[in-house]
Amino acid sequence: MKTGLRNAVAKRLPILEWSRDYGRATFGSDMLAAVIVTIMLIPQSLAYALLAGLPAEMGIYASIAPIILYAIFGTSRALAVGPVAVVSLMTAAAVGNLAEQGTPEYITAAITLAFMSGAFLVALGLFRLGFLANFLSHPVIAGFITASGIIIAASQLKHILGVPASGHTLVELVASLWENLSQINWITVAIGVPAAAALFWVRKGLKPLLIAWGLGPRLADVLSKAGPVAVVAITTLIAWLFSLDEMGVKTVGTVPQGLPPLTAPSFSPDLWASLIGSAVLISIIGFVESVSVAQTLAAKKRQRIDPDQELIGLGMANIGGAFSGGYPVTGGFARSVVNFDAGAATPAAGAFTAIGLLLASLFLTPLLYYLPQATLAATIIVAVLSLVDFSILRKTWTYSRADFAAVSATILATLGLGVEIGVTIGVALSVLIHLYRTSKPHMAVVGQVPGTEHYRNVRRHEVMTDENILAVRVDESLYFANARYLEDRIYDMVAARPAVTDVILMCPAVNEIDMSALESLEAINDRLKALDVRFHLSEIKGPVMDRLRRSNFFHHLTGKVFLSQHQAMTAIKRQNVAEPLPVSAE
Amino acid sequence: MKTGLRNAVAKRLPILEWSRDYGRATFGSDMLAAVIVTIMLIPQSLAYALLAGLPAEMGIYASIAPIILYAIFGTSRALAVGPVAVVSLMTAAAVGNLAEQGTPEYITAAITLAFMSGAFLVALGLFRLGFLANFLSHPVIAGFITASGIIIAASQLKHILGVPASGHTLVELVASLWENLSQINWITVAIGVPAAAALFWVRKGLKPLLIAWGLGPRLADVLSKAGPVAVVAITTLIAWLFSLDEMGVKTVGTVPQGLPPLTAPSFSPDLWASLIGSAVLISIIGFVESVSVAQTLAAKKRQRIDPDQELIGLGMANIGGAFSGGYPVTGGFARSVVNFDAGAATPAAGAFTAIGLLLASLFLTPLLYYLPQATLAATIIVAVLSLVDFSILRKTWTYSRADFAAVSATILATLGLGVEIGVTIGVALSVLIHLYRTSKPHMAVVGQVPGTEHYRNVRRHEVMTDENILAVRVDESLYFANARYLEDRIYDMVAARPAVTDVILMCPAVNEIDMSALESLEAINDRLKALDVRFHLSEIKGPVMDRLRRSNFFHHLTGKVFLSQHQAMTAIKRQNVAEPLPVSAE
Repeated sequence: MKTGLRNAVAKRLPILEWSRDYGRATFGSDMLAAVIVTIMLIPQSLAYALLAGLPAEMGIYASIAPIILYAIFGTSRALAVGPVAVVSLMTAAAVGNLAEQGTPEYITAAITLAFMSGAFLVALGLFRLGFLANFLSHPVIAGFITASGIIIAASQLKHILGVPASGHTLVELVASLWENLSQINWITVAIGVPAAAALFWVRKGLKPLLIAWGLGPRLADVLSKAGPVAVVAITTLIAWLFSLDEMGVKTVGTVPQGLPPLTAPSFSPDLWASLIGSAVLISIIGFVESVSVAQTLAAKKRQRIDPDQELIGLGMANIGGAFSGGYPVTGGFARSVVNFDAGAATPAAGAFTAIGLLLASLFLTPLLYYLPQATLAATIIVAVLSLVDFSILRKTWTYSRADFAAVSATILATLGLGVEIGVTIGVALSVLIHLYRTSKPHMAVVGQVPGTEHYRNVRRHEVMTDENILAVRVDESLYFANARYLEDRIYDMVAARPAVTDVILMCPAVNEIDMSALESLEAINDRLKALDVRFHLSEIKGPVMDRLRRSNFFHHLTGKVFLSQHQAMTAIKRQNVAEPLPVSAE
Repeated sequence: MKTGLRNAVAKRLPILEWSRDYGRATFGSDMLAAVIVTIMLIPQSLAYALLAGLPAEMGIYASIAPIILYAIFGTSRALAVGPVAVVSLMTAAAVGNLAEQGTPEYITAAITLAFMSGAFLVALGLFRLGFLANFLSHPVIAGFITASGIIIAASQLKHILGVPASGHTLVELVASLWENLSQINWITVAIGVPAAAALFWVRKGLKPLLIAWGLGPRLADVLSKAGPVAVVAITTLIAWLFSLDEMGVKTVGTVPQGLPPLTAPSFSPDLWASLIGSAVLISIIGFVESVSVAQTLAAKKRQRIDPDQELIGLGMANIGGAFSGGYPVTGGFARSVVNFDAGAATPAAGAFTAIGLLLASLFLTPLLYYLPQATLAATIIVAVLSLVDFSILRKTWTYSRADFAAVSATILATLGLGVEIGVTIGVALSVLIHLYRTSKPHMAVVGQVPGTEHYRNVRRHEVMTDENILAVRVDESLYFANARYLEDRIYDMVAARPAVTDVILMCPAVNEIDMSALESLEAINDRLKALDVRFHLSEIKGPVMDRLRRSNFFHHLTGKVFLSQHQAMTAIKRQNVAEPLPVSAE
């Protein structure tokens, strides 16, 4: 009993497992990873908060409590949770419909969204419903992320150009930018464009250069991760030196100094009703992103993650964020990879990162006053452009036109109609395409390969058939979407072969027969009976057979069930010679 | 070229086929069937129009043009289209939200609904999208029809009791009846209850009685079909003799005499936006009912129907109805069976029925003035109670709990929340349950049955395995809903077996690999490669293999593809002896 309880608790609190063996070596690795990730996270967190339409400091707050809660409840050892680009964009889209940016209502809605999303994720985890996230097909996610990346980049152009613009779709954003292009602030451009160029270069060119200068690869790696901080520092310094804020260059401004505030979500039914759809979409998109990162990293060390426990970990992170001034978060790809590469061995690395960010929010915020928003926009643009990848279009085009259609529709809908409609259309299309594919299963009339006990498609092989026996193989599980098609095809085949007295349905690839398909089989049996044709089955799998036995199908079946197709043919031929069926009157 | 064109036209106009061989014998059969169906349709059409909240004559109009258009475009030789109970109820639910019964707006909305539904059906037919109707599982339809029958019966009780009542759900109807029960009109009850009793008896008891009286079975059958008309005639006579309309008994009242009027649907975008969802639901429910009736009857004569052409036939019928004072129609079960049993040989029987109804609307309508609404309500109640069948609950309970859940939810939602929500929940649940079922496919570690080339589940059979080789069989097509699960399971299995150097995925039941699953296979390959484990496939089906060859999966595959599992095991064992893999450093 006691061990059972302990196991149950350990399953829900993965921290109990890894903390037991925590030692000095692990501490060292975790600490180093934490320092690197903290440096990387500061500008990113500020930038994503602005993308979400929130005060910059909320990006930092959204990283502190969530990281700690994920360390307690999550199963991935390297996943770094916090604000990410796509979820920030979705937050802006969801909350932007309800309140004006900069108002307390907007902030409350974002906090409430984090709480709802967290509660939904925890509920999914407790009810073990993580499989719901699988209803997003990979190509649809790829298309959605690409389109989101483009929208995010477009939304940041206004900060680089210093013009006002708004909109949640590419069309709205471009139109709005175009309209206000005359108000361009050239000093902002002179900050933003070089900042973006420098950040691009830091990504690719800094590390090789440092190594060429004779630094060790490890140190070069750490310094190149800190590169963006240098860009932030330099542009901030320039803005301070020349008082650029007085020349129309927007800076971050006053950021409150101190611990994350204690906040609470709203429980207004109206607000919940308006946000519920967005909360579900954000949760699922966030979870899918996060779990795929976690799995990639875990697999590299033959570790495992538990998707249902991951839901609880991410859910607790979001709930924690809602009570400490945050907004919806998830496991980010870039920061998790950095964390992993830097040697994070346990989730304690996340906790140390949280301490680093806490110190930053206590002591560093005054330094952010002159940080130009154009620099943060450049940070975002450089980060999200790496998400944009149209190769999925080419890949799906060669592999599967149906998947291509789903991806194209998702990309176009996301760009043209917004993230929420885009992802909804993507999911709906994935499901419809799957149902369509399985709704017309491959069916083949089969005959005996001479001299063997094998039965193959008459169209592809030279085989022997019997004009009184129609043997049909169906290559799909039978369920409601294809039950009627099965009936149609069998009636057509029988109608075209007036000599047929026996039909054998060969089911080696039928993994399931649902109630609809069972009724179709009964209907086929009854209608064939009316035509004096017997209906047989062959090669039914064990679990399918077990289920069929629970119905009274076999009581009515006019024919028999055979273990192999060859047994079926032999037995039916023998029986037809012994007692031929009477010719039907009709 | 010319024959090609003729075939294409003949496919779209089935009338060209059957009219060619039309002779005197066929004419006789069709004529007799038409007389019987006409007699049966008159009270039914009036009753269903009232159920839809429309003037009684619209029920007759809705039968005339639609029947003729279906005869031209439809493929079933016995299907009788016209107003049916469930579609009338759904029309009332859809239009009732937009306008008050008895107003011109209400009638226009119903006409527009018929046009939209017709246009949608024709579009589905032209784009060959009939498969969409298959997304309704049989148990969900059964549950929906049962629940609809109960709601319809409840909605007619007010006419039998002579009290005002309203509502679109069972709860609303019962509450409304209860509230107004004090206003009960006992004279109406004295008409309605005996009428209902008589109709029930006519259904079961009249034909045996007539035969016992010495009538031939054929004549007895025709006369018992006319039984409901006798009930209508007798109650109308009583109402006229005693001027019951002055004693609070509601009668049909003045019905315009003449040809069906020329009407036109509205093209107001607002109205279309409000009706589009209902039009889609009505179309699909109507089509599913109709096509299953048509298939049942066609199969009895080894005839065939073409579902895509059926969509066009039903669509044209509805469009025709919209221009001639009708409302949404579909193929009815009861009337089609009567038509078939009466010997209808071609769709011309339908055309003759239309002529009969036309004569009725020209000459018989004055006789309907005193027809009590209670009699029509009794007609409906008797008709719909035959739809109510809870046996699907017992059947699904024993066969499949998932199907049981879907049926119960559909019935409860339809009764409690209305027909539109009910059927939507039913469809969504069918799809979700299917996705859930296939999202966790059966996977088995397999081993060799000693002395054979067969490989079976290690848990069910005494088999031989090799500690370096993990052979896994997956019993499901691989697609987005189970791609991630496949990855998880394989990583788990490999993580639990540190000695493994080769993984073989055995795919005899994999009928499809979509893009998501392909990416998962690539991910599995890459992650196993990082662990120095080779990844092999065996027993891939021809079409799946063809598709995989279009990707570059095989260029990256660390292992090989084998035709049979035994070949795979033999080849890998031989290779491992020749060149064992280096032990991984990690």
